[in-house]
Amino acid sequence: MDIKSFVLSKALDAREGARSLGKASSGQKDKALLRMAEALKDSASVLQAENEKDIEYAKGKGLSGALLDRLALNEKRIDEMAAGLIEVIRLPDPVGEVIRLRQRPNGMTVGRMRVPIGVIGIIYEARPNVTADATGLCLKAGNAVLLRGGSEAINSNRAIVNILREAAKQEGLHEGAITFIDIPEREAVMEMLKLEGIIDLIIPRGGEGLIRTVTENSRIPVLKHYKGVCHVYVDKDADLIMAEEICFNAKVQRPGTCNAMETMLVDEAVAAGFLPKMLKRFEAAGVQLRGCPKTLAVYPGINDVKEEDFYREYLDLTLNVKVVGDMEEAMEHIAKYGSAHSDAIVTTNHVKAMRFLREVDSSAVFVNASTRLNDGYQFGLGAEIGISTDKIHARGPMGLEELTCTKFIVLGNGQLRE
Amino acid sequence: MDIKSFVLSKALDAREGARSLGKASSGQKDKALLRMAEALKDSASVLQAENEKDIEYAKGKGLSGALLDRLALNEKRIDEMAAGLIEVIRLPDPVGEVIRLRQRPNGMTVGRMRVPIGVIGIIYEARPNVTADATGLCLKAGNAVLLRGGSEAINSNRAIVNILREAAKQEGLHEGAITFIDIPEREAVMEMLKLEGIIDLIIPRGGEGLIRTVTENSRIPVLKHYKGVCHVYVDKDADLIMAEEICFNAKVQRPGTCNAMETMLVDEAVAAGFLPKMLKRFEAAGVQLRGCPKTLAVYPGINDVKEEDFYREYLDLTLNVKVVGDMEEAMEHIAKYGSAHSDAIVTTNHVKAMRFLREVDSSAVFVNASTRLNDGYQFGLGAEIGISTDKIHARGPMGLEELTCTKFIVLGNGQLRE
Repeated sequence: MDIKSFVLSKALDAREGARSLGKASSGQKDKALLRMAEALKDSASVLQAENEKDIEYAKGKGLSGALLDRLALNEKRIDEMAAGLIEVIRLPDPVGEVIRLRQRPNGMTVGRMRVPIGVIGIIYEARPNVTADATGLCLKAGNAVLLRGGSEAINSNRAIVNILREAAKQEGLHEGAITFIDIPEREAVMEMLKLEGIIDLIIPRGGEGLIRTVTENSRIPVLKHYKGVCHVYVDKDADLIMAEEICFNAKVQRPGTCNAMETMLVDEAVAAGFLPKMLKRFEAAGVQLRGCPKTLAVYPGINDVKEEDFYREYLDLTLNVKVVGDMEEAMEHIAKYGSAHSDAIVTTNHVKAMRFLREVDSSAVFVNASTRLNDGYQFGLGAEIGISTDKIHARGPMGLEELTCTKFIVLGNGQLRE
Repeated sequence: MDIKSFVLSKALDAREGARSLGKASSGQKDKALLRMAEALKDSASVLQAENEKDIEYAKGKGLSGALLDRLALNEKRIDEMAAGLIEVIRLPDPVGEVIRLRQRPNGMTVGRMRVPIGVIGIIYEARPNVTADATGLCLKAGNAVLLRGGSEAINSNRAIVNILREAAKQEGLHEGAITFIDIPEREAVMEMLKLEGIIDLIIPRGGEGLIRTVTENSRIPVLKHYKGVCHVYVDKDADLIMAEEICFNAKVQRPGTCNAMETMLVDEAVAAGFLPKMLKRFEAAGVQLRGCPKTLAVYPGINDVKEEDFYREYLDLTLNVKVVGDMEEAMEHIAKYGSAHSDAIVTTNHVKAMRFLREVDSSAVFVNASTRLNDGYQFGLGAEIGISTDKIHARGPMGLEELTCTKFIVLGNGQLRE
């Protein structure tokens, strides 16, 4: 079978799975999730043996230690995958909820019913845990998943999917609900992206290159974020002790994440009082600093920041520091260089806090809190399937509700259009 | 200037307009809408003169009477455009609404704020009234419009846009908020569709061909419906008098619309009792009938329906009639041949009504009401910018709220990520 027909047949399986899963009760889905979690733990040795094949192959290809680490499935990670599925059981089922049911003047009642999206294509890179995490969330929301993992993890992913499918089947769910495209050819991704009307949504997870390729080639809606170029603006009316803690947390607590701060903006009225102590603390934590001329004027000896640095997502202990004239200039900077991901103001001034909240056009806007808190768990959504910086359908962390849509329902007793 | 640079410069104007409009107050937007409505009425003679140029050109090209009628801007239609803008004033401003503001365990408060989408590209065909209608809705929701109308209406559209821009400017809004791509080349559409990151959403309005071209070439999210292949299923437990009224209304009241019925499905238990009277009434109203063999068995002398007919959107007084064994078969038929637009069941059976509501995967699902009621006004949204059969962002009629998105807002007092 050629690649095009192969991918199509897999997508049609997933479509069947979605039709069946859309009718499943919450209880049936939760039982399947429980059985899936148990099956993963019971199959730890099989999973590790399959994972070993991927690791050997990756070592042969000379992959870096960090990538090998992301690929590895040890007992702890298998337990975490299982625990993730158990957590999804505890979340309320979004499917079937009816909202805003209201009577219209002609006597009919109109509302919106929350329903699954259908088939969700997940295109992702090395981490095999995404296979179980994404499947659990999609399944609870009544969606079939069509999984396309990185070729480096193909044996691990195939093994995980086989275990999950078998467990779902034992609970009476259609196997197509969990479908894996288990060929390594890159062309398979391109074929997926053409299947408008069969696949309803694509969620790519990985580096900016992968996400750009997916977005540029997809005829199917895509939810994604390219990168996180996040800012903290320290206003002249900030509590400077709080500002220091927030900035330090936003940069240092886990610099490799998309919601970590890449540029700190400081009002010039407080620059001389705030920067020396703050920057010394950053340097002591190993942060490489790049400053604007006004920053260097109060804290000499660090590198100059270049304009192109303001667009960069370092994902590392590197930080741009810029002194701005006022909040207006800070918001202009964020609008121009930011990636609309997570941006914060530290201020005690209510008027400025409210303006910043309204006017900064990012997926999450913070007053007096760390950008690192942009996360589905932190925001109370339960697990998340990713963060969107798009403006359509979902913005910010995407939980179960963002994996559904609403349709209109009308309850009448003979209403006609006049 | 080449077409690519021309379209880019227009889109960047709209982007500036969106940034400015996003900060405008409700009062300012409403004043602009009022002035826009008055300006259209005051400029009726200018508009009609410009429209005359389009009509002459269209006649020269030999356009059909129906198309010429759609193109024509008489005094009544100008008044309707103005009245449409006034109606939008009365709708509540969705921008700035904060929903689900809740405290998290760490003491920060997290909610979602409704904000404009940004720049909305509207790609449409002959009717020049779309220019004013779409502009009014987008402006109220804080979005800039980038308008691309059909080349047949270019003089009319340009004149409308100039009037609206001038009125908006007089109320202090940035002119870029209403931007028109006033060159006739088709390439301009292709260039628009590449401007991801500058244009946030595309809404195409017109025939299926236009919509397919837009969807296949766009890197920007698109909200649309291709066509409306709508069904009414007459269950064996239906009130047959109500069923007759609903089916007649769904087909005949205005057959040229996307929510008119194209196929009537009838449970075989009631076919002999229901069909003869119903079909005679349809024929008396000029409906051309195409029946399945079981339909012909109880009502001979009409045409056979062919399988491909079930996929067709007639937009005319033609109807497919099919007898089905039960609701299951009716739902299978709708899933296979329908376009997920508007589908109805007529039944007095509660269990079947609830199953049909949940399992039929269409933008609007009706129990005991006509599919013709799928409409923003009828559903209580106020005006609508179109109907979506997509499953992402908006499904069914799209009103002001569907022209916005929500971002997360976080109000803290020093919260950090642990």
